[in-house]
Amino acid sequence: MTKTIYIAGLGLIGGSIALGIKRDHPDYKILGYNRGEVSRQIALERGMVDEATDDFAAFAPLADVIILAVPIEQTLDFLDILAGLVLKPNVLITDAGSTKLTIVEKADRVLDPKKVRFIGSHPMAGSHKSGAQAADVNLFENAYYILTPSALTVESAISELQDVLSGLHVRFTLMDAGEHDQVTSQVSHFPHVLASSLMLQAGDYRERYSMTQHLAAGGFRDMTRIAESEPGMWTSILATNQDAILERIEDFKNRLDAVAQMIVHRDQVALWNFFHQGSQIRKEMEIHRRGGVDSFYDLYVNIPDEEDEVLKIMELLRGTSLMNLRINEENREDIHGILQITFKTQADQIRSKEIIEKATDYQVFID
Amino acid sequence: MTKTIYIAGLGLIGGSIALGIKRDHPDYKILGYNRGEVSRQIALERGMVDEATDDFAAFAPLADVIILAVPIEQTLDFLDILAGLVLKPNVLITDAGSTKLTIVEKADRVLDPKKVRFIGSHPMAGSHKSGAQAADVNLFENAYYILTPSALTVESAISELQDVLSGLHVRFTLMDAGEHDQVTSQVSHFPHVLASSLMLQAGDYRERYSMTQHLAAGGFRDMTRIAESEPGMWTSILATNQDAILERIEDFKNRLDAVAQMIVHRDQVALWNFFHQGSQIRKEMEIHRRGGVDSFYDLYVNIPDEEDEVLKIMELLRGTSLMNLRINEENREDIHGILQITFKTQADQIRSKEIIEKATDYQVFID
Repeated sequence: MTKTIYIAGLGLIGGSIALGIKRDHPDYKILGYNRGEVSRQIALERGMVDEATDDFAAFAPLADVIILAVPIEQTLDFLDILAGLVLKPNVLITDAGSTKLTIVEKADRVLDPKKVRFIGSHPMAGSHKSGAQAADVNLFENAYYILTPSALTVESAISELQDVLSGLHVRFTLMDAGEHDQVTSQVSHFPHVLASSLMLQAGDYRERYSMTQHLAAGGFRDMTRIAESEPGMWTSILATNQDAILERIEDFKNRLDAVAQMIVHRDQVALWNFFHQGSQIRKEMEIHRRGGVDSFYDLYVNIPDEEDEVLKIMELLRGTSLMNLRINEENREDIHGILQITFKTQADQIRSKEIIEKATDYQVFID
Repeated sequence: MTKTIYIAGLGLIGGSIALGIKRDHPDYKILGYNRGEVSRQIALERGMVDEATDDFAAFAPLADVIILAVPIEQTLDFLDILAGLVLKPNVLITDAGSTKLTIVEKADRVLDPKKVRFIGSHPMAGSHKSGAQAADVNLFENAYYILTPSALTVESAISELQDVLSGLHVRFTLMDAGEHDQVTSQVSHFPHVLASSLMLQAGDYRERYSMTQHLAAGGFRDMTRIAESEPGMWTSILATNQDAILERIEDFKNRLDAVAQMIVHRDQVALWNFFHQGSQIRKEMEIHRRGGVDSFYDLYVNIPDEEDEVLKIMELLRGTSLMNLRINEENREDIHGILQITFKTQADQIRSKEIIEKATDYQVFID
């Protein structure tokens, strides 16, 4: 039986959700809202949506399912708007916000559970790209899609949403909204605070020591990559997950104090354990990459700085799922080799290492 | 004129230095010291060294150049040993330590400048691999090789060392030893403290919230990668660069406090600026760096999804400053795979467009 899906926000997330829904449910009608015209146009051209509007309230009453894929602040505003509209009976409403408790608590407060069904969602995938042109049906492949039912969530909402989104190929996981916010504060929100703070710290240091910029290498680059995230989104996240993040900041400062004491007291045993434990835990946690744009399988090859070598390597790797080739000019500490090759699958990564090692005497590293 | 080079430490660094020296100076005799037998054997088998010993003092008197490529603590000990030996007149001695001031100050203190010439070195390259089997003649290709002359360093030491190491293909850079330690505290040492602290923090959080491990993704992975560094090395680094690192810790805690205040006071403008500035500074610092991670000048080519086409394009673009090649898969049947090529200069971007258009009938887009 066909359905009408209404997606508010036709950026990377909303657009990719639309493509995913269409994959398994080509018969569904998908309506879209986007404030900006460019993404509205692209969404129509790319067949993500059948119709698009810049007036959020216009299509809401037509929907069987409403997905709020707009920024957190707008999601909160749209909940108010939905509360004032006459919607289809038992319409299913969900969101895509990076924090959950604030949104879920508001939904429970303003929406009428006798008329609508709400469940919080957080699709945990993305890339640094934005806009409908970046939308990708595979964006969420194998990613965690967190669902945070509240006391008012009905079972049918959970199962129906999973069915609607089946084409996204995600791993649905139920979590308590508060626990979601705690966990993401640790693995995502607070790390963003760290990365930006480190970047600002280095920026100021550069004023005193000009070589700062030049000696910043792979490790520093890795640690500050997420400092280039979008400021508006992260401001909203910090604003809607305050307690958890403040607590992580406090805990972290205590840890820094402990390390400082180890240094001051020249406690080499404690310092060694500090580094050793960090290393062990990371290996144990086997930090996984999900299917996102910047999460694939890399291989590094130390080649002489000659073009023919790059071509030679590419010839060897025909038939693999090679997706990216980067020539790292700078050879720095923490970067393994000049040529960085990215594959879609781990199998190809491993196979390619063997191929190159067999055919050349170059050293090949897998991260 | 041939020389005898003595390399203490035949691991990744010492071994790679040996290979680099041999590349430009095949006539030099290279003697090696290593405590462990395996790397000694491998170094001999791979032709890195002509002779190898596990008795450091044994070969030192035979050397024209002595390179201490052992851990920091051992380097400091070996300086004492060298001070008590009769060495060749004007022997050139250098090290490879990650911190400089402690080593340089000790060298100045214990070595006799009338008899030996010393200069501190820090080859800024490496990988997570270790041992002589990982040594690679290209390890330092294009890397910064910091030289930290002290008041006692003679000019001939600088020029001679650069000549001996010419086969490493590095970028020699002179720096004040103290400034070296300050800069590396910011871009390398303190970030390692951050990464390990974050990893330990998440490890503890995992005890309370089991989903911590599962929701840790790309950003968290990037930020904790260097937490897997070797604990012994990092303990020594913290022990020999205390003041600078303690000061970075203190400064960072103040920054965390400031962010906490912004959150508590719901100062969204300040939070937005915090994230925005971090992003801006990172982009700024990347642009001036050669071969930075972010894209410079992109070109897009619509090619049929065939591998030969990619190779063909790469052959056409030989001689350009091509730095990255990405194969963007499209999800619609009628669109060719989009090849995204990144150049360092706009001139190359434009020139390459012309080259491809002339040689093929593919569509080429500049963003």
